[in-house]
Amino acid sequence: MIIDCHGHYTTAPKALEEWRIKQFAGIKDPAQKPKVSDLSITDAALRESIETNQLKLMKQRGSDLTVFSPRASFMAHHIGDFDVSSTWSAICNELCYRVSQLFPDHFIGAAMLPQSPGVDPKTCIPELEKCIKQYGFVGINLNPDPSGGHWTSPPLSDRNWYPIYEKMVEYDIPAMVHVSTSCNACFHTTGAHYLNADTTAFMQCLTSDLFKDFPSLRFVIPHGGGAVPYHWGRFRGLAQELKKPLLKEHLLKNIFFDTCVYHQPGIDLLTRVIPVENILFASEMIGAVRGIDPETGQYYDDTKRYIEASALSAEDRYKVYEGNARRVFPRLDQALKAKGH
Amino acid sequence: MIIDCHGHYTTAPKALEEWRIKQFAGIKDPAQKPKVSDLSITDAALRESIETNQLKLMKQRGSDLTVFSPRASFMAHHIGDFDVSSTWSAICNELCYRVSQLFPDHFIGAAMLPQSPGVDPKTCIPELEKCIKQYGFVGINLNPDPSGGHWTSPPLSDRNWYPIYEKMVEYDIPAMVHVSTSCNACFHTTGAHYLNADTTAFMQCLTSDLFKDFPSLRFVIPHGGGAVPYHWGRFRGLAQELKKPLLKEHLLKNIFFDTCVYHQPGIDLLTRVIPVENILFASEMIGAVRGIDPETGQYYDDTKRYIEASALSAEDRYKVYEGNARRVFPRLDQALKAKGH
Repeated sequence: MIIDCHGHYTTAPKALEEWRIKQFAGIKDPAQKPKVSDLSITDAALRESIETNQLKLMKQRGSDLTVFSPRASFMAHHIGDFDVSSTWSAICNELCYRVSQLFPDHFIGAAMLPQSPGVDPKTCIPELEKCIKQYGFVGINLNPDPSGGHWTSPPLSDRNWYPIYEKMVEYDIPAMVHVSTSCNACFHTTGAHYLNADTTAFMQCLTSDLFKDFPSLRFVIPHGGGAVPYHWGRFRGLAQELKKPLLKEHLLKNIFFDTCVYHQPGIDLLTRVIPVENILFASEMIGAVRGIDPETGQYYDDTKRYIEASALSAEDRYKVYEGNARRVFPRLDQALKAKGH
Repeated sequence: MIIDCHGHYTTAPKALEEWRIKQFAGIKDPAQKPKVSDLSITDAALRESIETNQLKLMKQRGSDLTVFSPRASFMAHHIGDFDVSSTWSAICNELCYRVSQLFPDHFIGAAMLPQSPGVDPKTCIPELEKCIKQYGFVGINLNPDPSGGHWTSPPLSDRNWYPIYEKMVEYDIPAMVHVSTSCNACFHTTGAHYLNADTTAFMQCLTSDLFKDFPSLRFVIPHGGGAVPYHWGRFRGLAQELKKPLLKEHLLKNIFFDTCVYHQPGIDLLTRVIPVENILFASEMIGAVRGIDPETGQYYDDTKRYIEASALSAEDRYKVYEGNARRVFPRLDQALKAKGH
């Protein structure tokens, strides 16, 4: 089985975006604020949006199951207040839940959280619990910068975030550390802000003792870990100067990297440098880079091709494709076992 | 000849830091503001600080000439106003000039600029011109975020920066795009902020048409280009979606990467992915990562070892070590030729 641990619902029916635009209007003019019930998307529309996009590509490329969460760039936690984020999160998570019910063999949910800049992260817990307990979601996406590129929240090692971590430990779920749209003109969203956030989050963990406080806490750092594997010597050396244990001990029981790196040399570096136990297959398909690479004639985000062409043994490929995901997402493993997989 | 295009004076005599601390005190209490003449560092002290550090390692490792600029993390453009930055830049640049006069075969200067958040970059031009014309410097360091991690300046593609670019073109000098200390708690200076800035700067160039306005402008992106080479497929794909030319046409006549990547797999990726004409040897020695790698028994920042062990041919190694630096820093080439090199 091939599990893609990083998929977003980037192809939701247009009605969703139209509702969101009305929500923006409602921030300035409460008279224009839409009701949740103004949004109506049929099962047929959901089905079509998936069957003609993600599911079609999954079948073509040969992956089986996607951990599916709301579109990352649309989370836009910086817009409006907690109430705005809360309503929007509930809508987006419910759509992913419905997709997981329509295609139970191919999609299982991960939750976006109703984060809002300057608002206590513990306000996210009711939505988190609903998604895990009622929707059967197996993970969450945690935005280390709900300000959208202004980085006004404390680092992930700060106690401010601990209420989220306590719930993650209680439910035994990992978080993918994933920012949303940048509203800082310096940072292109998918070309700079995403990668910077990955590197930043890793370094926040490196300089702290967060995993002493939460030995079973698990973060998936997406986009191949940002700049981290490429600069693995730098990070090993910085940990050494900071008198931290070796990274294997200090961070690699808790931090995992996905394979959203869109060319062969990048995947080759990732699999050469990072222990195979810490690499989870992912594509973030129909995401930042949707085109076909003229150098290969294949989709940039068809990351399975790079894994297949890497030096990994069959046993190691199993870990990357399935074994590690079952370990990092225990609720995913349980859901699969309950179905006899 | 082996040219290290990225060296900072990280080992300046203690008196420099002591003077800077007094300067900080003077920001709050003008009565404590030190005079420039309060700082006195003898040639003997400069000589010792270099001979026992950079020059010793250059001889041990086998590099010949370093493009030498003030310590990057000490630039701290976010502290005080333009006047503070201006005085500090003049002091630091003069010390690098004196080092270049004491060791003319081994050091040649690159200038820090007296940038200050919110202040027009054209205010930096007198210091830039002094360094080029009087000190014989061959390049500058340009900080894309003088706020120190708050990213309040416009992107490098903004016309705000054009006065600097006009002078760079006039004097035919490149800029190394290099931030300074982060005062944002989210970003570790050398583990996150430096790498993020490299990625950010590259993407600012990618989304813009800056090099149409300045076809001969040249940026060196340090630290191996941040996350860029590792995610080269992503950047190629993003350029494609943005309807930009191929990166080779769009950016690689103007953007160059140094080799400050502190492990073999990283250098192997860099040299596999980026055309050899765009790679300049550098170590940033006695910088962010000063220790010995237990996996190799060698200094992390002894980057020449990685180049030697890479797949580059002798001809390509010449380009990385010398040829490209002469092309990107024409004033360096002229200075060498004037000495018969």
